[in-house]
Amino acid sequence: MNKTYENLSSILEKTMALQTALVLFEWDNETLAPEESGSYTARVIGTLSEEYYGFMTGNEMGDAIAACEKESDLSEIQQAVLNGAKEAREELICIPKAEYRENAQLIAEAARVWFKAKKNEDYDSFLPTLEKVINYKRKVASYRKKDGQKLYDVLLAEYEKGFDTELLDEFFGRLKEEIIPLLKEIKENGKEIDDSFLTGGYPVEKQEEMARFLAEYIGFDFHRGVLSESAHPFTTNLHNHDVRITTSYHDKMDSSMFSVIHEGGHGLYELGISDEITQTPVGQGTSMGMHESQSRFYENIIGRNPNFWIPLYDKLKELYPDKLDSVSIDQYMEAINKVDPGFIRTEADELTYSLHILIRYELEKMIMEEDVDLKKLPEIWADKYEEYLGIRPEQVSKGILQDIHWSQGLFGYFPSYALGNAFGAQLYFHMKKEMDFDQLLRDGKMDVIKEYLRSHIHQYGKMKTSREILKAATGEDFTPEYFIDYLKEKYRKIYGLS
Amino acid sequence: MNKTYENLSSILEKTMALQTALVLFEWDNETLAPEESGSYTARVIGTLSEEYYGFMTGNEMGDAIAACEKESDLSEIQQAVLNGAKEAREELICIPKAEYRENAQLIAEAARVWFKAKKNEDYDSFLPTLEKVINYKRKVASYRKKDGQKLYDVLLAEYEKGFDTELLDEFFGRLKEEIIPLLKEIKENGKEIDDSFLTGGYPVEKQEEMARFLAEYIGFDFHRGVLSESAHPFTTNLHNHDVRITTSYHDKMDSSMFSVIHEGGHGLYELGISDEITQTPVGQGTSMGMHESQSRFYENIIGRNPNFWIPLYDKLKELYPDKLDSVSIDQYMEAINKVDPGFIRTEADELTYSLHILIRYELEKMIMEEDVDLKKLPEIWADKYEEYLGIRPEQVSKGILQDIHWSQGLFGYFPSYALGNAFGAQLYFHMKKEMDFDQLLRDGKMDVIKEYLRSHIHQYGKMKTSREILKAATGEDFTPEYFIDYLKEKYRKIYGLS
Repeated sequence: MNKTYENLSSILEKTMALQTALVLFEWDNETLAPEESGSYTARVIGTLSEEYYGFMTGNEMGDAIAACEKESDLSEIQQAVLNGAKEAREELICIPKAEYRENAQLIAEAARVWFKAKKNEDYDSFLPTLEKVINYKRKVASYRKKDGQKLYDVLLAEYEKGFDTELLDEFFGRLKEEIIPLLKEIKENGKEIDDSFLTGGYPVEKQEEMARFLAEYIGFDFHRGVLSESAHPFTTNLHNHDVRITTSYHDKMDSSMFSVIHEGGHGLYELGISDEITQTPVGQGTSMGMHESQSRFYENIIGRNPNFWIPLYDKLKELYPDKLDSVSIDQYMEAINKVDPGFIRTEADELTYSLHILIRYELEKMIMEEDVDLKKLPEIWADKYEEYLGIRPEQVSKGILQDIHWSQGLFGYFPSYALGNAFGAQLYFHMKKEMDFDQLLRDGKMDVIKEYLRSHIHQYGKMKTSREILKAATGEDFTPEYFIDYLKEKYRKIYGLS
Repeated sequence: MNKTYENLSSILEKTMALQTALVLFEWDNETLAPEESGSYTARVIGTLSEEYYGFMTGNEMGDAIAACEKESDLSEIQQAVLNGAKEAREELICIPKAEYRENAQLIAEAARVWFKAKKNEDYDSFLPTLEKVINYKRKVASYRKKDGQKLYDVLLAEYEKGFDTELLDEFFGRLKEEIIPLLKEIKENGKEIDDSFLTGGYPVEKQEEMARFLAEYIGFDFHRGVLSESAHPFTTNLHNHDVRITTSYHDKMDSSMFSVIHEGGHGLYELGISDEITQTPVGQGTSMGMHESQSRFYENIIGRNPNFWIPLYDKLKELYPDKLDSVSIDQYMEAINKVDPGFIRTEADELTYSLHILIRYELEKMIMEEDVDLKKLPEIWADKYEEYLGIRPEQVSKGILQDIHWSQGLFGYFPSYALGNAFGAQLYFHMKKEMDFDQLLRDGKMDVIKEYLRSHIHQYGKMKTSREILKAATGEDFTPEYFIDYLKEKYRKIYGLS
């Protein structure tokens, strides 16, 4: 191997090891760590984060990158690793160490402040913290921004390279003009769907059995993966041979099932990363949006498709005979696809989900670009819910304080969720031209679908951007139209609209 | 705070953070990590270990220690931390980096070689690896040894400061001359005890319930601790607010119960370390022997004492009515104290346990001091089992290959297990003078016992050696006589010997 690259690689190995340790601490904290371990373990995490910052921004790394940039014989992967390292360094090095550390403390504290404020329905107690977080994010964005670039565009690019407010305005504009009238039509003329049988009387042990079964069924490899329980479902990975998903078990039985299919989609992405790039700066899913495209593809496009359930519904009935013996597969399919505008994003149905994201996008733009009065955010939030979804939250816990994201400085992250839906639909349209998708689902041939996604998306990690992947897989640039068509066709049919 | 000390403290924080991360990886690997994650995660662990080595042996640490040594106004804790840091550094710095790394790889590989050799009953395939491990340990011991010191004494001191072959020869000599005849007498004249009812028909869920109950009952704090399952029970801790124990569930019901009480004893030790020293180099149990004294104290002196079971036996019967309804508490007590010489150390009864250790001690001395022919070890092992326990293992998996320790280079570690028994008995004798021990057990006042151990032992961490702790708590230096008296009294009574 090239000596210069080898040197970079061995320094990167240290940063990756620290990052992997941090991932493990986070996993452990969410799934197992005893409740009083918090502040003690936080010291460890703080120290390891600072070490990571030190290595990434240090001269040793700087020299190694500079030396590699002079090399002309790097392989494609080596070049990608070099670029990945450079980007990760540039994102950090512009932030002074003291500010970096101060922010880490602020963020850790902010989670607790947010949690308490939400519990007490007290937005005002969260306001000073929110303001600090926003100021920090603006400052960081201003450090990073190129001439003429908008602050919010800097933040958006962190999660989705190649996307900015111009493109997203157009995207969300199309969603707005199509989904809102469709939703109105459904509410005014649509039929009532009964989904009451999904709630109550579903023992947790059986939900656990089904969760594990479904993960395995869609192709999640338990030799390289783990399924655990946590308050909020999530996916994480140490590398491509250790990918971990969680779900949570509630009264409403479909919740754990669709969580595990959703997280399983994230998990398949990380399991599909090529061996050659795992444990390097490009060895992860390429973007938040592409990740969500995979999870929501499995959750909605596959998991809420009747053909998926044809070979599985009998098993589900066997598991819960008391609950499902008198429920036909058609009734079941309608129930799990019921459109029901609600306050909570994470519980939203497939159709209204993107409207929740639209609202957050519009607010984030106001926060970052229009200097909105933060005191007025709960009101603006409620107004938008009333306008777009026809419901008005009276409690901040079901309104602006429902998500942890802003307390963690994750501005620019929400749009990925909606983009994921659109990426997935665009890929789906193209896949259907290459394979009899519904027949594969009916035959339970989940491996064919997984293999397609692995070879077109997963294996590359961050070596291609989401737009490059879409272009290569579908032959065209990103467009929201497939998603809109998919929603219209599916939901007009379910609700018997002409 | 003193500036010089503060500097040392902040460098130590980095090494402690790396060590804590390594502990978490080990925990995760034993309890949860997917089976194919091994070699990928091993890279991460290797990198973090090297970082730890680098920090501990680096100039920054050396300078900070040297500066602190010139300070005259260090507090007692600061002085102990300084000494702890110095010792940890001295243990590492004498080993050249290349050798350190090579050994880490050897050890990682050795576990796999050992595991396979054990499975295949093939000692010869393990021999070359064992030889390499032994050579490395001898080399390290020779780097560390002081003039005239024996190599094996260097290794012993790693686990138990203040103990050497001279003291241990005497200790094991006493055990040998007292336990072997007693065992013979029991076998020749003793009664048959029926313990068959302990095996079979104990559902794992109920064993889990009992395990958690017992841990809580002896005072293990689940706000700062975790109980999980693993192939071999063990205890680990990130700090004094995150202590983790495991057990394993088998056909033989008492196995999981006594494992959890044993590991609970280890756990209470780490939970009892004072807040002021946790997350420093002295913030752990002082030695392997003192640790085993706590675990075996809970397992045997408490857990196999009839007074402990008086308030609990009804609960046990309620949990397993089919199995225990016709078993009296006296029958139960005899069964869990049955003397039954067997091949496997970890399954040994309280009386014969120390003989398993004696055999390992004698072999380790031969290996380190007498240049024994390694090919002959299985034969020597079998001869000693025949001589001391009256049984001869025909399979290496039940003989010399049963323990992982030697593959991991843990020479000098085994004696701690026997010392722990003796430390515990010495402490027990003294405690009985200060409190009505049996009455406390009958009343379920486990907190009084825990508090005594915390205030006399746990809180100090490594600030006192095991001999200093014994001296302060019992008023005399270490002696094996209390342990011998305890065994003789207890087992002569159980077996009706005059």
